[in-house]
Amino acid sequence: MAIAATEPTSVRAFGPAAALSCRECGERYDLTPRFACEFCFGPLEVAYDFGAVTRADIESGPANIWRYRHLLPVPENVAELPNMNPGLTPLVKADRLAAELGLASLHIKDDSGNPTHSFKDRVVAIAVEAARNFGFTTLSCSSTGNLAGAVGAAAARAGFQSCVFIPAGLEEAKVVMAAVYGGRVVAIDGNYDDVNRFCSELIGDPAGEGWGFVNVNLRPYYGEGSKTLAYEIAEQLGWRLPEQIVIPIASGSQLTKIDKGFQELIKLGLVEDRPYKVFGAQATGCSPVAQAWDKGLDVIQPVKPDTIAKSLAIGNPADGPYVLDIARRTGGSVEHVGDDEVVEAISLLARTEGIFAETAGGVTTGVLRKLVREGRLDPGAETVVLNTGDGLKTLNAVSAGVTATVKPSLKAFAEAGLA
Amino acid sequence: MAIAATEPTSVRAFGPAAALSCRECGERYDLTPRFACEFCFGPLEVAYDFGAVTRADIESGPANIWRYRHLLPVPENVAELPNMNPGLTPLVKADRLAAELGLASLHIKDDSGNPTHSFKDRVVAIAVEAARNFGFTTLSCSSTGNLAGAVGAAAARAGFQSCVFIPAGLEEAKVVMAAVYGGRVVAIDGNYDDVNRFCSELIGDPAGEGWGFVNVNLRPYYGEGSKTLAYEIAEQLGWRLPEQIVIPIASGSQLTKIDKGFQELIKLGLVEDRPYKVFGAQATGCSPVAQAWDKGLDVIQPVKPDTIAKSLAIGNPADGPYVLDIARRTGGSVEHVGDDEVVEAISLLARTEGIFAETAGGVTTGVLRKLVREGRLDPGAETVVLNTGDGLKTLNAVSAGVTATVKPSLKAFAEAGLA
Repeated sequence: MAIAATEPTSVRAFGPAAALSCRECGERYDLTPRFACEFCFGPLEVAYDFGAVTRADIESGPANIWRYRHLLPVPENVAELPNMNPGLTPLVKADRLAAELGLASLHIKDDSGNPTHSFKDRVVAIAVEAARNFGFTTLSCSSTGNLAGAVGAAAARAGFQSCVFIPAGLEEAKVVMAAVYGGRVVAIDGNYDDVNRFCSELIGDPAGEGWGFVNVNLRPYYGEGSKTLAYEIAEQLGWRLPEQIVIPIASGSQLTKIDKGFQELIKLGLVEDRPYKVFGAQATGCSPVAQAWDKGLDVIQPVKPDTIAKSLAIGNPADGPYVLDIARRTGGSVEHVGDDEVVEAISLLARTEGIFAETAGGVTTGVLRKLVREGRLDPGAETVVLNTGDGLKTLNAVSAGVTATVKPSLKAFAEAGLA
Repeated sequence: MAIAATEPTSVRAFGPAAALSCRECGERYDLTPRFACEFCFGPLEVAYDFGAVTRADIESGPANIWRYRHLLPVPENVAELPNMNPGLTPLVKADRLAAELGLASLHIKDDSGNPTHSFKDRVVAIAVEAARNFGFTTLSCSSTGNLAGAVGAAAARAGFQSCVFIPAGLEEAKVVMAAVYGGRVVAIDGNYDDVNRFCSELIGDPAGEGWGFVNVNLRPYYGEGSKTLAYEIAEQLGWRLPEQIVIPIASGSQLTKIDKGFQELIKLGLVEDRPYKVFGAQATGCSPVAQAWDKGLDVIQPVKPDTIAKSLAIGNPADGPYVLDIARRTGGSVEHVGDDEVVEAISLLARTEGIFAETAGGVTTGVLRKLVREGRLDPGAETVVLNTGDGLKTLNAVSAGVTATVKPSLKAFAEAGLA
């Protein structure tokens, strides 16, 4: 087509994405590796010129996030490029958990089925395409653990170098998973917020040249990956928005992008425009957004995290204020549960649905239970809860073990009281 | 329909399955919970009356193994029943590993994306439907670890009690994953073969009444789950059989069922009938089938397992002789690699493709590399290698860790030689 030939390569490389735009003041920028507005320092996000997108277009696509490529900042041929191809994880009809909690309709969106077993594969997959377009040679990130594994794996698959930054003292499984792909893993003597600050400095330093930090200078692209959770939930419900959804809050980006995804589906006419309530979930030991919610504030007071839910342990969540807006706008709320409730909820979810969640899934399931108990969730409304990670990465949070050890005989079995 | 109404319920509950038939003497039995021929003690397998099955029938099904329900002993409405719904895991185009090994076309079938992160979810899903049909109330198994987790999860999801048996001394992650779903986990003081013998005794004992042992009295149904690997590989290659495939051997059942699946696809006209070579892979420390192959024997000499590849540590593999037959018939072979090569291969796969395999995936990748190096695999032929499990369950096999721990400053980063 004549029109296509006149488009600059950089635009077509980002598919339907048209520009970066400031979430605060609306200022627009070219699609470049930048993340903050030069005028008001607001966060930048991807703005699109969507053409017509039909359910059939999507349903005929691959069984991963690239079925939504016409709604993402990626090229048309993205499915042919080396990438981890995450997504289309199960939306589990959780009838046994629903019965135990007294809910009419409950689904778990179980993102532990992604390649490195957390939702982070979604956001990294988009960042990888941006890094490729910008000619970066090293992939990097600040991470509470899951992201480091996702970046390490994606870099290996796509042929990038990698160097990821984590706080010292993370779970062993997360450290090994970050390192096994052969990239560098640097532990920072501090918490996640220290790691994040360090990465921001490194971007301005010659040592960081040619590096794509997926959640810093590639953040506008990266964040779009979370929209695919919204798309999948709606498609898997039969092209319908849930009436209530419980989402974990770390930086808050995931929650805001799921809301963005739902809004896009409505605007494109892919789902009916009906109300949905968004509930944010934090662990009490790192609950700055829930605390602001409780106090009716618009600003977030940073905290020092102290919780077993390390993947949510961001004391100064960048998107916290937007989370508060969305919870207010939709009639939801932001809640927190203590570590004991997190552990209980992990067991509850495992026992009723056969899903072994990491601590973040214990936080959302725990908040779900709390909301039901306190009568703040409509038990008759269609509800979705996110499990964003895998219990194998937070083994120490649960104390499950063998019931008994016996010799291989029926007599020993009976004597142990097991028969 | 009048015809449907006259069919006995038990037949329709098993979909296209018509009977059990003895692999040795062909004797047929009703679809009941039995596993050995009364006449010749040969293993029983499911025999079918397939109707016409088209690619379109399959492609319009759900994104899990139930898309192949017309080829499995499950009811037509199986996708609506509570089950883990495994399958349709990625077939990864492994161009970087192929380049490193000098292969023209290589794919990894990565089954770590299943709900409990091993291929065992496939076989258990079929056994669950059989257990439901037979009215069992407890799900059980003898397991090297992965199966215990798959049974625990599936029992929780489907509302069965569970009691699983494992050898003492398994990897922590496998023990926790077996136990977290709330069922009983009994460690047997012995190796897998001791566990297996114990379970066979328990079936005949009142203590085992009402128990469905997925890999003992439900074994004929259970085994059929492995056929879905064959179906998926063919469908994901664009309805084509691979020319070479490398499959791990524990009991040997998986390899024989993948061959059965390929043969069914040919007979149903769903793929072209072209030759394929099947290569079996074992760890040297438990390689009774490879040893029989090397010696040109038809019988398997049991061994005492001593390898880090615990999920393949079956010293007396029931389907060993059938594996030998298939390797001979197809022009493949049965190979083994030592534990050092297994560890190297885990790193190789992680570094080139971003796939973190458990030790069993190290065995298949290691055998692939060995076959290429020794000129016994055609480097120009389309090759598929299976990764049947997840590195998070065998963390101790790899020694990956942080590159360095530094304070959060550019100076500290530079001084550590990282800049």
